[in-house]
Amino acid sequence: MALYMDIHHKVEGLTEDAVAGAHARDLEVQDKHNVKYLKYWFDEGSGKVFCLVQAPSKEAAAAVHREAHGLEADEIIEVQEGV
Amino acid sequence: MALYMDIHHKVEGLTEDAVAGAHARDLEVQDKHNVKYLKYWFDEGSGKVFCLVQAPSKEAAAAVHREAHGLEADEIIEVQEGV
Repeated sequence: MALYMDIHHKVEGLTEDAVAGAHARDLEVQDKHNVKYLKYWFDEGSGKVFCLVQAPSKEAAAAVHREAHGLEADEIIEVQEGV
Repeated sequence: MALYMDIHHKVEGLTEDAVAGAHARDLEVQDKHNVKYLKYWFDEGSGKVFCLVQAPSKEAAAAVHREAHGLEADEIIEVQEGV
C-alpha cells in the first residue's frame, strides 16, 4: 500500500456540503478497491481539494473517485509522510 | 488562525533527510511568527512537498520558511479540513 496526495485544481461550485457528500461516497465505495481515503482539505473560494489516500496504486485511488462521484483528481502524487 | 496547505512544486535534490532537516528548522523558527507547521508530505522522485500549517496569515507561514531555510512554497492555499 502506498500513500498519495491527490489534487483537484478547480471543482466548479464547490461547497463544504458538496465535498463532504462526495467524500462520504468515496468511503462507501473504497473497500472493494482496497483503498482508504484518509483526510481531505478544501478551499471553497478557489475550488481546490486535496485528498490524502492510501491505495495499492494511483489507478485504484482514481477508480474510487470515478465510481463514487465522477470527480477525478487532476494530479495524484505518491508521497511519504514526514515525521 | 487559519489553516493552509502549501505546495513546493519541485525542490531540487530533495531527500527524506533534507526535508526532515528543513522541517526541523521550521519548528525552531515558527513560534516567533505565531505559526505551527503541523505535517508534511513529500515525494523524492518529483521533488514535491506539501506542508499543512496553521498560521495567522499566508505571509506569516511564508516568513517561517524564508527564515528557517529559504525554501519558500510556490503556492499557499487557505483550506478547511474535511471531517
